[in-house]
Amino acid sequence: MEKAAIGIDLGGTNLKGIIMNDKGQGRHLTRVPTEAEKGGAHVLENILVLIEKLIAQEGSKDHISGVGIGTPGFVDDDGTVLGGAENLPGWKGTQIYKPILEKFGLKAIAANDVTVAALAEAKYGAGKGVRNSVCFALGTGIGGGIVIENHLYKGTHGMAGELGHIVVETNGIPCNCGQKGCVERYASATGIVNLAKKLSAEKKGKDETQFTKEVNGNPSAVTSKMVYDFVKKSDPVAMNVNEIACDMLARAVGITLNALSPDRVILGGGVMMAGQVIIDTVSKYTPRYCWPAIWERCEIVIAQLGEDAGVLGSGAMVFEELAIIC
Amino acid sequence: MEKAAIGIDLGGTNLKGIIMNDKGQGRHLTRVPTEAEKGGAHVLENILVLIEKLIAQEGSKDHISGVGIGTPGFVDDDGTVLGGAENLPGWKGTQIYKPILEKFGLKAIAANDVTVAALAEAKYGAGKGVRNSVCFALGTGIGGGIVIENHLYKGTHGMAGELGHIVVETNGIPCNCGQKGCVERYASATGIVNLAKKLSAEKKGKDETQFTKEVNGNPSAVTSKMVYDFVKKSDPVAMNVNEIACDMLARAVGITLNALSPDRVILGGGVMMAGQVIIDTVSKYTPRYCWPAIWERCEIVIAQLGEDAGVLGSGAMVFEELAIIC
Repeated sequence: MEKAAIGIDLGGTNLKGIIMNDKGQGRHLTRVPTEAEKGGAHVLENILVLIEKLIAQEGSKDHISGVGIGTPGFVDDDGTVLGGAENLPGWKGTQIYKPILEKFGLKAIAANDVTVAALAEAKYGAGKGVRNSVCFALGTGIGGGIVIENHLYKGTHGMAGELGHIVVETNGIPCNCGQKGCVERYASATGIVNLAKKLSAEKKGKDETQFTKEVNGNPSAVTSKMVYDFVKKSDPVAMNVNEIACDMLARAVGITLNALSPDRVILGGGVMMAGQVIIDTVSKYTPRYCWPAIWERCEIVIAQLGEDAGVLGSGAMVFEELAIIC
Repeated sequence: MEKAAIGIDLGGTNLKGIIMNDKGQGRHLTRVPTEAEKGGAHVLENILVLIEKLIAQEGSKDHISGVGIGTPGFVDDDGTVLGGAENLPGWKGTQIYKPILEKFGLKAIAANDVTVAALAEAKYGAGKGVRNSVCFALGTGIGGGIVIENHLYKGTHGMAGELGHIVVETNGIPCNCGQKGCVERYASATGIVNLAKKLSAEKKGKDETQFTKEVNGNPSAVTSKMVYDFVKKSDPVAMNVNEIACDMLARAVGITLNALSPDRVILGGGVMMAGQVIIDTVSKYTPRYCWPAIWERCEIVIAQLGEDAGVLGSGAMVFEELAIIC
């Protein structure tokens, strides 16, 4: 039977799993609740339940090379969660690999969820066909993932790819990480929404646009989607928000280009529902922030796999790191 | 006979070559003039002369796996110089590999000189024993090199590692690259000297120190060595130059840490003759600019190989990329 992998995406609300082949084709997509509030040991128990369900649907586990898991935070080489997963209380310190090996006889491999999504995009999505790519996932924050010579680069302790904390403005907006001016303060959904509120408040009572009226009327309802709906309508203030956010993102992209000279930069995450306008605006600003010779050899593209990137990347790790030795 | 490699370091003045084994032990260290002013074709001719001299000293080329070359600028996968070597007129566009193969029957591999030095440090010097390391070479400018999972990361077109152009100050000092606030404007020898002149000029006629008097008396004679000689004497202005330069460098180091989470950051180049004081000061500031969990797992160290890093890294590339297929 064709070699297969189990890919699991650990979210704050749901655990998602599939069985897939090394071409990135999945089956038996299954969800179980994460129940994060019940603590790390319980989350691990739910992962075992999910693996059991997937194997049951598959009918056999003999051809399964291992279990890949994408999780918030960092995972050390031995499968211990090192931290960085604040929405999963008690998850830090959990040993992931051993219980899976003991219960199912399957090796496991885990990594940061955004990092894993970057691997999926590199192998099956927007990075297919090139050797080196970098992902920025624009969500509530900004996550990152680096694929070097077709392999996921995790760093020795699974911590590489924190691209959201590249400082792009000296003494800029304070970030939860302790720095000021991190790119995620400007170009994440949170950053875009805050910028929209700030620019709209400045227009209050003068030069209001339809966008600023809506924002000022109900600031708590503003989303990045709303901002980009108004960008489509050419609202000047919404367009200005886009320009500033994309300029800031371009600074981080430029730094990443100078350091890694990737063939592609892949932009994903919820904010990228806005699509091409972000690609175009970031591509306009990026040449200001990197070497021309590097920029000429790189393109900025939209992620293609959407919410499936997590499970597919987790499964891809199995083929990359476990399949041969199993 | 033990497998060997030829390592060549292409400098603006001299071409340096050795024959070495895969433990980084070299012999027959030989220099010929680069004669850069005579153009790219002539430089290539001199490289062939150097290879011939090395083979003559070795007595045989049967056990030589290939020729590695570290050069200023970027080299594409096929051995074409893509540019970035401004002090070598006519070097851009030169095909390096073919003439070496035709004349000696030896495969060649070339890469940026600082990148190559980073590989040498990783394999035989300050990065020995760890999987992931990053070098900053503090010279006239700042070069960089990235070693990922024990392999030199060059990027698809040999352009990775331009760490000197990480922007560390929004709207900072203009850089030749077109950006403002690149780290090499502050923490290279040039940056340190300029900072020393600026701070000394501000003290003119008030609060002068022995350092500012010397600097103001003969600004064109200032070197980074002189600055650090006064740092050793605890001159407050010289110490302030060190603090500012190291803070700026720490910003670039912090960004690199968040992106790549290396096990070691290696500081080399002429400025590092100053030694431990720079390591200590950069290590003091870096935690402000990266994730604590990443910082805990990294150390900043001094490069160990000095001027030999170029030839050793060039030879190391041969063992890394050519030895198996020869």
